[in-house]
Amino acid sequence: MLYSADTWPITVALLQFPAIARDGTRAQDATPDAWATAFRQVARAGFSSVDLTDVWVRAADLSPGRLTDFADAALDAGLTTPAISLIRRSVLHARHGDDNLAYSHRAIDAAAALGAGVVSVGLHQELTDEQKDQLWFWTVTGHQDPVGDPDMWDRAVRRLGELGRHAAEVGVLLSLEMYEDTYLGTADSAVHLVEDIGLESVGLNPDTGNLLRLHRAIDDWRDLLERTLPFANYWHVKNYQRDEDRKSGRYSAMPSTLEGGVINYREALDIAISSGFQGVICCEQYGGDGLSVSGTNQRYLRSVLPETGDYDVPSSRRLQYAPAVG
Amino acid sequence: MLYSADTWPITVALLQFPAIARDGTRAQDATPDAWATAFRQVARAGFSSVDLTDVWVRAADLSPGRLTDFADAALDAGLTTPAISLIRRSVLHARHGDDNLAYSHRAIDAAAALGAGVVSVGLHQELTDEQKDQLWFWTVTGHQDPVGDPDMWDRAVRRLGELGRHAAEVGVLLSLEMYEDTYLGTADSAVHLVEDIGLESVGLNPDTGNLLRLHRAIDDWRDLLERTLPFANYWHVKNYQRDEDRKSGRYSAMPSTLEGGVINYREALDIAISSGFQGVICCEQYGGDGLSVSGTNQRYLRSVLPETGDYDVPSSRRLQYAPAVG
Amino acid sequence: MLYSADTWPITVALLQFPAIARDGTRAQDATPDAWATAFRQVARAGFSSVDLTDVWVRAADLSPGRLTDFADAALDAGLTTPAISLIRRSVLHARHGDDNLAYSHRAIDAAAALGAGVVSVGLHQELTDEQKDQLWFWTVTGHQDPVGDPDMWDRAVRRLGELGRHAAEVGVLLSLEMYEDTYLGTADSAVHLVEDIGLESVGLNPDTGNLLRLHRAIDDWRDLLERTLPFANYWHVKNYQRDEDRKSGRYSAMPSTLEGGVINYREALDIAISSGFQGVICCEQYGGDGLSVSGTNQRYLRSVLPETGDYDVPSSRRLQYAPAVG
Repeated sequence: MLYSADTWPITVALLQFPAIARDGTRAQDATPDAWATAFRQVARAGFSSVDLTDVWVRAADLSPGRLTDFADAALDAGLTTPAISLIRRSVLHARHGDDNLAYSHRAIDAAAALGAGVVSVGLHQELTDEQKDQLWFWTVTGHQDPVGDPDMWDRAVRRLGELGRHAAEVGVLLSLEMYEDTYLGTADSAVHLVEDIGLESVGLNPDTGNLLRLHRAIDDWRDLLERTLPFANYWHVKNYQRDEDRKSGRYSAMPSTLEGGVINYREALDIAISSGFQGVICCEQYGGDGLSVSGTNQRYLRSVLPETGDYDVPSSRRLQYAPAVG
Repeated sequence: MLYSADTWPITVALLQFPAIARDGTRAQDATPDAWATAFRQVARAGFSSVDLTDVWVRAADLSPGRLTDFADAALDAGLTTPAISLIRRSVLHARHGDDNLAYSHRAIDAAAALGAGVVSVGLHQELTDEQKDQLWFWTVTGHQDPVGDPDMWDRAVRRLGELGRHAAEVGVLLSLEMYEDTYLGTADSAVHLVEDIGLESVGLNPDTGNLLRLHRAIDDWRDLLERTLPFANYWHVKNYQRDEDRKSGRYSAMPSTLEGGVINYREALDIAISSGFQGVICCEQYGGDGLSVSGTNQRYLRSVLPETGDYDVPSSRRLQYAPAVG
Repeated sequence: MLYSADTWPITVALLQFPAIARDGTRAQDATPDAWATAFRQVARAGFSSVDLTDVWVRAADLSPGRLTDFADAALDAGLTTPAISLIRRSVLHARHGDDNLAYSHRAIDAAAALGAGVVSVGLHQELTDEQKDQLWFWTVTGHQDPVGDPDMWDRAVRRLGELGRHAAEVGVLLSLEMYEDTYLGTADSAVHLVEDIGLESVGLNPDTGNLLRLHRAIDDWRDLLERTLPFANYWHVKNYQRDEDRKSGRYSAMPSTLEGGVINYREALDIAISSGFQGVICCEQYGGDGLSVSGTNQRYLRSVLPETGDYDVPSSRRLQYAPAVG
């Protein structure tokens, strides 16, 4: 049986949970009780799985004992932990690339220890000061990977391949998150990168919401998903409403529910499933009460996913990137 | 008894169902099984009635046997078919006007054969290349009916009247969809056209959502509905959020739920009901998962429609355009 | 026990209920039956409490007998009336300031008679003609209180203090609604004003939605709420989606659900509760079917408010502005 509406693993990212709480407590150093309080909010929002997004607690940097406490806090709240997303930890970063690589290795080990089947990484770097100064950071241009720089491209292939081999050894998948102006910023470049890496354990996280919200002309989401979902092994889903006035070059985008935005996720799921995708889906939302919107989004996803698991998938594509663990 | 929250017929348009599927199959030539799959999605979204919008399958062009198969596929999924909407099939089209007129006649016959009580037509024409190139086609100007051209106006009256008489003969209503820059683009012109046609079988489809989303100064929706709902015999409902900066001439509009947009549909329904409207309501939505949004919209409508059918309607206006069939 | 998700008093404002109905009836002079019809709509939208917003009926101007009828109509529909909001009745108005002051006194007496614990007033004045001419009145600048005018400031302190003393005498709280370009338009000024008044019975209504929707650079909502919620004794909640293009000075804002807008109300409630706020919350919404959106918003609020009433609040802050009545 394949996944169906009731069984498909759907996580939520923890973007609304701060690294430093209002009372000054660092989430990384918090007590298991404090973690449990956060996880109970996630469960109350309707989730039974969570993405251990590292903007809150860095699982990779917990001691073995604390990592067990962390996983127990999630389990006690009724949450499995099938995925870890690393945010803005590019292995190509000019100064922090080596640190980010080592950190990503630790995250893969943490994932294996937790029984998480997938680690998501990306090539987007820290927000610039100008980005931090905006209501929405994506309305101004940030870091850009150097286009047409074969050395940098090779470094990407080499370092991400190194992570992919490590992941394979411990039964974890490595997923590469699409993000504008990086080597994972277009369908062409992202597929090219995955193919150059050439490992079964390395696939894409086709987070087309990242590309939909930009204040500039954008690629067609259908075309993006048609080309990247066959390589997907994890999937950050989010949506935006958008308006354009092309003649005057005015673009506007606002976070929306999955149901209510420009991307038709009913159709996107159809493309995914017919491409053999059987990976974990992660609800991610910026702005406002992203956790509650994600809960709404999970209910939407389960209302349009296949009602039973006996649907047909082309055998050539079936389960290409199914997680080996969890 | 008049219609109430539980009994009011509410359809959904099939704008998200493509004429050509991803695998290249044409919906028009598809098997009844393929039709049934689509209809089951509609039923799963909460609907028990569907508008056979011709952007997917043209009921008018099915052979009698195939038309029966089509209706059976809907019925098997639990759907009645009280309405057919024809999209961009203006009888005033310079080259295709005659074809569109003949096609509209066939659609009226198909409606009668299916037991559908209403056929919706409009005077909007094919999208221009510039319109097709936009994120939202309504952000640039498209076809315009010639204002102040008595010959063209007479042709509209004559041809739509011809369709109206045919409709009356077979017990079907003809509904004229409001759309910008056509003879159905303002309350004045739309009412004038219906009055010039002067048939009980011909009324308006006051789709004010079409007018709300334009990137220009627009008429007040309340005034539009007050003036056109007394002539309504079908009603495409959709809503948009909107922002304006009039000094600089910047307008923005984004598709929304019925509940969450600029038009207050609680008030619009009140205007409709007190005008004697007892017609079918059709949920229509552009962009994203319009089917799911329409399901959300149907639930909203039933939460604000009269709880029972014993409300009062001015007898002068009661049931003026109630469908004769279905 | 403190308030919890099930018990927290949540009202809805009556912004969508017109002073003059479509049939010309004035709500102020309507029969108790007509009032009951409106209150039943409010109850059907899920509410068990209502803010007697004076844009519909002015409780302050009802005779004692009619006021009893009014309260009975609400009670018959299953609604308590814990609050009255007065809209655009500034006691600083150049011509109507004296009348508005007298009116506010009558409103406090009406509140006491109804058992309503709080009366909300503000310093915003009538909409200008230019504001009335916009889709959204907040997209152009309206009345501005004179900054740095000590006489006017003293008048605000004196007149609002006079109302606060009256309120205290009859066991009612006076809440000052934050609104742009008035002495209640920034956190600094609003807190300064409350402190200058210096009465236990006078606090803030930190309606930051008013400030979020402006077409100009705005203050951070978190900072605003952190500084004003410790002084809150009533709270109008509403939310907007928003986009900015700072370089070109383009700002856009559209009404949204509480869940779906820029302000994270999960976090806002956390700030409120940890500041000792135990006041009534009022759902307010402009545009469209604000009553239904408010019903959606109430369900959201109850999904994120504390599940039980045994949470911890710093004792120094606890119940600082708890209503003495109702």
